[in-house]
Amino acid sequence: MKHKPLIAITMGDPAGSGPEAILKALKHRALWKLARFIIVGDLKVLNKAREIVKADNIDFILTEDPDKFDINKDFAVGVIDLNNVNLEKLAYGRPSVIGGKAAYEYIVTAVRYAIQNKVHAIMTAPISKESLNMAGYKYPGHTELLAELTEAKEVIMMLIAKSLRVSHVTTHVSLKKAIELIKKDRILRTIELTYDALINLFKITNPKIAVAGLNPHAGESELFGDEEIKEILPAIQEAHSKGIEVTGPYSPDSVFFRAYHNREFDAVIAMYHDQGHIPIKMIGFLEGINLTLGLPIIRTSPDHGTAWDKAGKGTVNERATIEALRIASILARAKISE
Amino acid sequence: MKHKPLIAITMGDPAGSGPEAILKALKHRALWKLARFIIVGDLKVLNKAREIVKADNIDFILTEDPDKFDINKDFAVGVIDLNNVNLEKLAYGRPSVIGGKAAYEYIVTAVRYAIQNKVHAIMTAPISKESLNMAGYKYPGHTELLAELTEAKEVIMMLIAKSLRVSHVTTHVSLKKAIELIKKDRILRTIELTYDALINLFKITNPKIAVAGLNPHAGESELFGDEEIKEILPAIQEAHSKGIEVTGPYSPDSVFFRAYHNREFDAVIAMYHDQGHIPIKMIGFLEGINLTLGLPIIRTSPDHGTAWDKAGKGTVNERATIEALRIASILARAKISE
Repeated sequence: MKHKPLIAITMGDPAGSGPEAILKALKHRALWKLARFIIVGDLKVLNKAREIVKADNIDFILTEDPDKFDINKDFAVGVIDLNNVNLEKLAYGRPSVIGGKAAYEYIVTAVRYAIQNKVHAIMTAPISKESLNMAGYKYPGHTELLAELTEAKEVIMMLIAKSLRVSHVTTHVSLKKAIELIKKDRILRTIELTYDALINLFKITNPKIAVAGLNPHAGESELFGDEEIKEILPAIQEAHSKGIEVTGPYSPDSVFFRAYHNREFDAVIAMYHDQGHIPIKMIGFLEGINLTLGLPIIRTSPDHGTAWDKAGKGTVNERATIEALRIASILARAKISE
Repeated sequence: MKHKPLIAITMGDPAGSGPEAILKALKHRALWKLARFIIVGDLKVLNKAREIVKADNIDFILTEDPDKFDINKDFAVGVIDLNNVNLEKLAYGRPSVIGGKAAYEYIVTAVRYAIQNKVHAIMTAPISKESLNMAGYKYPGHTELLAELTEAKEVIMMLIAKSLRVSHVTTHVSLKKAIELIKKDRILRTIELTYDALINLFKITNPKIAVAGLNPHAGESELFGDEEIKEILPAIQEAHSKGIEVTGPYSPDSVFFRAYHNREFDAVIAMYHDQGHIPIKMIGFLEGINLTLGLPIIRTSPDHGTAWDKAGKGTVNERATIEALRIASILARAKISE
């Protein structure tokens, strides 16, 4: 039993389709070979979601603290019941103060457990930025909240779909602003955090990292822009001098294909949001996941939102949640086996 | 016989792998059901390429003019021999003055035939910008040369891979410059040319066009940039008022998936080079093709370069050339059946 890690799952926005996605995912026996699971959420919402998705094989084991959850049985899910949702007042399928406040509290609780090493990783179900804001929590999203709660200095969004791993130098800013942010130090830091993750989390002995250019054909010898020469190449050279096997800048339109189809690289550094998100979504729209690098804890999430239109209907696609749980479990196993 | 269109194939840079790709493609019987083919090139180079790729079933029929090429037999390829390559001086696998000059002349000749309606479409094998420049022809690539030769005012690059068609508002400029070029009129023109192509070339009765945003999540209500509100939305609205079924701006990271996997749209308008090239290459790296919109002639090409490293070895992948010939043939058939 000591060899199966414990993964905390935050229930996400109770009015979204997160609770249903979690339970649909946990119906898959393969996940139970890898880890044990404990949901931080609201028992009433979970009971209702279990009915909706007909997850009769799943047992909820009410628990006060992850330390006290010592059950190691397939389909027996621990539940930390924060009892913070008034079901009668909750409207499914849209943002709400109740939803934002509840989702926030699940995250705070799960992160505390992770920092205390009571759980080995967390998987966060989708929250709504709108709900969070309505409840008075002004964060652009999960990542910024997690960074604050864990006092992380710098966090990087890595997306994973199938064998493709992509780390982003910039994310939720305009494309114009992203270009301004493409600076040597920021690129170097992204390369380093990616390298650390490949070594320490993914246990890849000699990881190969590719860096995408910013411009078409990576600038084609400065014909189409000079950021490659001024910022990207110096970052690659400095990372290389620190012993990291990193190459580029490569033409952005082929480097993702090369990493994915030809398996030439263990990860690709993307310069901006869509450069990294487009290839991930093309191959794994329904199963892409997010791994936050730079946190002191392991955290994954499905790379999609609350799917309001599917809440309460049991129709949410659970593939990304399965993947997020699977990867959190694998990374947690590697961590506890050290 | 009159119902099979005649496609002119330019041989491309004789030192590249174009000639071999053409002959490997023409070995595929399926193409001969659709059209007849005539290569504008150099017979010596073609004979050597035929030997290299072992295309023994292909007959070359020397012809002075497409009008005189009246053979309708599978694997009988017309050849317009410009006899402009000195094989003894030609070094395979690298740019050269000979290669640039020869490739230029094939294009000029084929375009003239197409304008004169002696051929119904052209398929251009890869050329080298370096060779062209060495030979004194200062064009960034095929497209600009074709625009000049046909006196086309405005040309648009449409890439096609499998069922995904993507038109580009901007292409070979830095990302910074591309953002400056994202203006209402330019976007509108791209939508219109795409619409015309879907109606007139692809014979789609009620084509649906999607427009990608420029910024992450298409700006998310101006949180991440305002080009969507200022330039893209007005272009969509004006096109819509002209009776074009066009919607957007959509989140760039999902619109290509929706067009390709869900078949929601007949074409997507991409704002910049890599936004359109990344999804095309992810699904069709070896079979993506280029269709130039805005020319008075039908022109396709494989979406890859001379593949110097494979020249003379017979190892070039011919899938994109097959696709480029197939689509040129289909569009030419639709044109002559009008």
